[in-house]
Amino acid sequence: MNEVDITGAVCPVPLAHNEQIVMGHGAGGKMAHDLINKVFLPTFDNPALGAGDDGAVLSLPAGRLVVSIDSHVVFPLFFAGGDIGRLAVCGTVNDVAVMGATPLYLTAGFILEEGLPLETLRRVVESMKQAADEAGVKIVSGDTKVVERGKGDGIYVSTSGVGILPEGRQISGRRAEAGDAVILSGFMGDHGIAVLAARGELGFETGVQSDCAPLNHLIAAALAASENIHVLRDPTRGGVATTLNEIAKQSGVCITLHETSLPVRPAVASTCEMLGFDPLYIANEGKVLVLVPRIDAEKVLAAMRATEYGADAVLIGEISAAPQGRVLMKTAFGSTRVVDMLAGEMLPRIC
Amino acid sequence: MNEVDITGAVCPVPLAHNEQIVMGHGAGGKMAHDLINKVFLPTFDNPALGAGDDGAVLSLPAGRLVVSIDSHVVFPLFFAGGDIGRLAVCGTVNDVAVMGATPLYLTAGFILEEGLPLETLRRVVESMKQAADEAGVKIVSGDTKVVERGKGDGIYVSTSGVGILPEGRQISGRRAEAGDAVILSGFMGDHGIAVLAARGELGFETGVQSDCAPLNHLIAAALAASENIHVLRDPTRGGVATTLNEIAKQSGVCITLHETSLPVRPAVASTCEMLGFDPLYIANEGKVLVLVPRIDAEKVLAAMRATEYGADAVLIGEISAAPQGRVLMKTAFGSTRVVDMLAGEMLPRIC
Repeated sequence: MNEVDITGAVCPVPLAHNEQIVMGHGAGGKMAHDLINKVFLPTFDNPALGAGDDGAVLSLPAGRLVVSIDSHVVFPLFFAGGDIGRLAVCGTVNDVAVMGATPLYLTAGFILEEGLPLETLRRVVESMKQAADEAGVKIVSGDTKVVERGKGDGIYVSTSGVGILPEGRQISGRRAEAGDAVILSGFMGDHGIAVLAARGELGFETGVQSDCAPLNHLIAAALAASENIHVLRDPTRGGVATTLNEIAKQSGVCITLHETSLPVRPAVASTCEMLGFDPLYIANEGKVLVLVPRIDAEKVLAAMRATEYGADAVLIGEISAAPQGRVLMKTAFGSTRVVDMLAGEMLPRIC
Repeated sequence: MNEVDITGAVCPVPLAHNEQIVMGHGAGGKMAHDLINKVFLPTFDNPALGAGDDGAVLSLPAGRLVVSIDSHVVFPLFFAGGDIGRLAVCGTVNDVAVMGATPLYLTAGFILEEGLPLETLRRVVESMKQAADEAGVKIVSGDTKVVERGKGDGIYVSTSGVGILPEGRQISGRRAEAGDAVILSGFMGDHGIAVLAARGELGFETGVQSDCAPLNHLIAAALAASENIHVLRDPTRGGVATTLNEIAKQSGVCITLHETSLPVRPAVASTCEMLGFDPLYIANEGKVLVLVPRIDAEKVLAAMRATEYGADAVLIGEISAAPQGRVLMKTAFGSTRVVDMLAGEMLPRIC
């Protein structure tokens, strides 16, 4: 982590019982060093981080660089299928991967609230390490700040990612074209409903797990199956509806969805119905939208379905030239309606 | 910023009077897009950010990559000589620069508290742009989250930076050697005292301005003056004393300071005396420590003094082989005492 001596400090140090974050953990002195030596270094252990300098020096293969950042404020910190640590790593890995790039390195900035049990931080950090290992990325630099009780909410994590974009590959929300098929990698809304359930406000059990997952291997499989993929985008906040609206506007095309093809788990559908939500607007954290010419759609679908997180991939719609900037839906009854962007707030602090 | 349509949205949109941040600004839908179009895009305007994808694609000159991240929680947001925006940009620029690298690109993640006046956010963002221009870096990707009233404190900003480290250059806290001189680029403690004064708890005026500044040009001048610089480090949290302790431990050397050479402004010295603080432990945000063989010290000093932020650079100490890992001080009275690392908390939320 930044400005920290880590000489010989890569073995886990046992935690005292009930140890908590105090303001001194953020002051950059001995306590801050202790925290890093106890929690961060033994978990994220790698040479770049272990160097103990203000940043990490990295060697990169040839290609263009992709960078991305996300701040994570999900509440609660732990939910079925994930936690803020897994979310932070996967969110940034996915943001780099949907640019068509191979994510390689992450940095992480923590804002901790005074009084946070150190054990909670350790659980989150270990979850980050697991997710990073699964994605095949390294967490190479970091920073920790502490704020007073009531000025934060346990843990906020900002993660930044860098990746390499091979020469010649061009993936962008501006590249959607008439004739493209729209593929979604699996069921909609799992993450949003899992987080909502974890807040304990539903009054019933849903059994829904967050889909929070690193999608770089799935995306690599899709890119290997076709060189003609135009757009990749992960439908997080605002859900599939908002993400497709962004693409329709960026590319100046019309996207038409088929209501009967939209994949929603029964438990998500019934929860949404009870709450008056539409799964099209619920956040996903382990799904990707792939826009590719119709002729390549079947081979991309097959490649995606062969991966762990793409088993339920389906074709949900197609692109036409007009009306520009619109998302439409062919309903189960054969009518067509406009699908707009999320207008305001639906589920705050979902990621 | 992430997942946002920005087509044709690079002209500033007037703010309505008294507009505030609400939870919907963090929901990823229309309101989030409005915020980005009103505040971030017109200010940070550049092609990588304007592309509106999930990350930024960048071309890089040859060399190794340096990455760094910092989260900023300074309280209050505005203080004499700076604000959280300038601090966030300078802090990350400096972390990359002290690795010996040329900082090129930044990403920024915002955690906003519900109820924040939009005008406050705009002031911070404009200050970030000014600091980025001064440093010659671009803010190429970003993210915004909103938390409920009382779960944040106005604005927290996480910034991540990437830079290029030329082949052959090796700057690290592990490279300090016996015979090195220790140069400090100017007065100690200005930032810490300026922030403390801005909290209104001192009961008197200090007239002290934060030294918050991008140091990449100053550092480039020092590196141009000598190819033998071993260590560069900015003494932020924990001050000069803590930073030198880190270096002494990383390199296994002894650093001896000369008390009479330590540069402290009279107003900082008198404020510290009244509060029982030692300027050696007070945070700086526009200072750098340079460790270079004694034979090159004068030319490095001259090069630093010729730059805007290095005019008051002085030689404050030297390195010897033993006792390993120690920082000592030769006092004005000729005695020697140990200078330890900051133990716990001194000034919370100073950066």
